[in-house]
Amino acid sequence: MNRKRGGPTIKDVAQAAGVSIGTASRVINKKATVRPEIRNAVLSAIDRLNYRPNAVAQSMRRQSTQLVGCIIREINIPALAAFVRATHDVLDQAGYSLVISNSEGIREREIELIDRLGRLQTDGVILGPYSPIDAQFEKVLHDFGGPIVLVDRDKPDWADAVMADHAGSIEAATTRLINLGHRRICLITGRPDLFPAGERVRGYRNAFARAGLPVDEAYVRTTGFLANEGFRHSSSILGGKDAPTAIIAGGIDMLAGVLRAVRVRGLSIPQDISVIGSGESELAELHSPPISIQRWDQAEVGRTAAHLLLRRISGDRTSPPEHVLLPAEFVERGSIGPPRQS
Amino acid sequence: MNRKRGGPTIKDVAQAAGVSIGTASRVINKKATVRPEIRNAVLSAIDRLNYRPNAVAQSMRRQSTQLVGCIIREINIPALAAFVRATHDVLDQAGYSLVISNSEGIREREIELIDRLGRLQTDGVILGPYSPIDAQFEKVLHDFGGPIVLVDRDKPDWADAVMADHAGSIEAATTRLINLGHRRICLITGRPDLFPAGERVRGYRNAFARAGLPVDEAYVRTTGFLANEGFRHSSSILGGKDAPTAIIAGGIDMLAGVLRAVRVRGLSIPQDISVIGSGESELAELHSPPISIQRWDQAEVGRTAAHLLLRRISGDRTSPPEHVLLPAEFVERGSIGPPRQS
Repeated sequence: MNRKRGGPTIKDVAQAAGVSIGTASRVINKKATVRPEIRNAVLSAIDRLNYRPNAVAQSMRRQSTQLVGCIIREINIPALAAFVRATHDVLDQAGYSLVISNSEGIREREIELIDRLGRLQTDGVILGPYSPIDAQFEKVLHDFGGPIVLVDRDKPDWADAVMADHAGSIEAATTRLINLGHRRICLITGRPDLFPAGERVRGYRNAFARAGLPVDEAYVRTTGFLANEGFRHSSSILGGKDAPTAIIAGGIDMLAGVLRAVRVRGLSIPQDISVIGSGESELAELHSPPISIQRWDQAEVGRTAAHLLLRRISGDRTSPPEHVLLPAEFVERGSIGPPRQS
Repeated sequence: MNRKRGGPTIKDVAQAAGVSIGTASRVINKKATVRPEIRNAVLSAIDRLNYRPNAVAQSMRRQSTQLVGCIIREINIPALAAFVRATHDVLDQAGYSLVISNSEGIREREIELIDRLGRLQTDGVILGPYSPIDAQFEKVLHDFGGPIVLVDRDKPDWADAVMADHAGSIEAATTRLINLGHRRICLITGRPDLFPAGERVRGYRNAFARAGLPVDEAYVRTTGFLANEGFRHSSSILGGKDAPTAIIAGGIDMLAGVLRAVRVRGLSIPQDISVIGSGESELAELHSPPISIQRWDQAEVGRTAAHLLLRRISGDRTSPPEHVLLPAEFVERGSIGPPRQS
C-alpha cells in the first residue's frame, strides 16, 4: 500500500517529446493546430511515460467535471436499480460519471445532497424529490446552478421532467377489478402531492366515476411510499370489518409488504384477495400466482432523463422545459379474480 | 433555465466582511487562528452573499476530491443494491460521495473505468473485478494510485478485501440435500477463478467427499455469473436424461432464471425438483414455496468495505492488507424435499 499519487506531469511529457509545454497541452486537449509529426512525438511520450492528464485540473479549465449527480429515495429498490442502470449507461456513453446519493426521502437530506452536488460542481442533477416543492425547496434547486431533470415529478415546472402515466394504468386496473365484481378495493400509495401518488388516486377515482360508483375514502390510503406502509395498511385493513376484496399496491416498493400481510393472515390469492402491484419485478413475475401489475419501462425513464440532461449540459439552456409522459399499461396475471361471495 | 454558474467569490466575501482574502480563507478552511469577532464577520458575510466554497478548487488544495468510486458488474441486481446502499451510507456519513459505475463484467470496461476514476482523482475505489487478476490487470489497479478495497475477491493480495464464507454455507446446503437422498445435484455458478464461484465449488465437493460420494462433473456448471446462465443450464440439464433432482443457483443473479426454467417445464418445487438460491431476496422469501438460500449480510459487506477504505484514505497506507471473511449460513425453507422416486 505504498503507492503514491502523482507520476509524470505534462512538463515531463513535453521534455521527453522535445516540445514546449504549450504544444504538449495542445495535443492533450485535442486542438487541431499541431503538426502530425509533433503530435505523434507527444503521443508516444505520453505512452512511454504512462502520463495521465489530471481530470480535476482539466475540469478547472473547461468548467466541467464530467460528473452528473443522481439523488434517489432508496437505491435498494429493484425497479430503481433498473432506472439507475439505464441512466448510467447513457451518461457513461457520453463520458460522464454518475454520483449517486440516497435521500431516504428526508427533506434535510435532499437539501444537503443538492448543496453537496453543487459544491462538487457536478454538471447536472437528476432527481425525484420527496419534499413538497415549496418556495424554500425551489430556491435550493435554483441555487444548484446547473440543469436539473425531474423523475416522476411535475414540479417545479421550469425543470425538464420524465413521468409515467400512472393515472391511465391504475384506472384500467381498477376498472378491471370493478368489472370482476369488486367494490371494496383498497389503494395504498404515497402522499397525493407527489406526482405518481396523485395520479394513481386520480386514475382510481376516474374508474369508480365511470362505473357510476361512489368512492369509499376508507379504502384510499395515501400516507407514504415507504416499504413498510404496504404491510401496515394491508395488515390493518385486512383485519378490520368490511375488509377489502382487492388491494392495489400503488408504489414500486410496496408489493412485498402487501404479500407479507396476506401471508400472515393465511389468505389465498386470488380466492380470498386480489392483488395488483406497481412496476415489474422478479417477485411479481415469479410469484405463485404471478402478480398483475401496473407496468412502465423504468429503463426508458432513465434513458430519457439522461438524454434530457445531456442536451442541457451541452449548451441548450434556453429552449422551454420539456415534460415527457411515458406510457404505462395494466398487465393482468393470475393474482386477480372475482371476489369471494360473502 | 437561464441560471448561470458562478456567484460570489471569496474576494466578495472578504470585501463584505472588511477583511483580507487570507483571513476569509482561514475562516472558510476552519483554521483556529482567527479572532471570534472576525470569524463572525466573515461567517455573516458568507451567509449574506450565499457564498459556497468551490469544492473543486478546495480539492486542488487538499488533494482530496471527497469522491469514492465503486465499480460493480450490474447495479440491476437486488442484492447488490443493498450492498451499494450500505457502502453509500458509511461514506456519506464521512462526507464522501459515491461515483458508481457498471462494468457488466467486461474486462475492457473494468480497465477503462478504473482509469477514469483515477483521472477523476477519486480518493479510493471499491470493486469486485470479473477480470482474471493477471499481470496486466494488476498493473491497472496499481496505476490507479489510491487505496483499493476488493469485494468478494481475494486477489490481488496486496489490497484490502471483504468476502463471505461461500464454501461453508454451500457445503451445508449440499450436505442437507445429500441427507435428504439427493445424488444428482446440479451446481450452477461462475468461473472457478473468481472467489465466490471457486468457494462454492469447493464447498460442494467437500460435502460429497465427507459423504464418501463421488462428484459427477456433469452436474457442476461453472461458465459464468450472468443471469441468463441460470436459465440456460437449468433448461438444458432438466431436459436431458439423468436430470438432476436438485439445483443450487450459485450466484446472486441466478435464481430467477432457474425458477423460469422450472416453470417452463411444468415442474413442481420441491416435489419434482429441489431448489436452493444464493443471497436473500424478496423473490426467495415470498415465492411459493419460499426458496432455501445460502445467506450472508450484503449490507455488512458494504459497510465493511467502506470502513476499510476510509481507514486507508485517512492516512493508514502502511498496515498490512486486511482480508475480512464474513459468515454465511444455509437457510432451509420449503423449496427442498426428498427426491421423487424414479
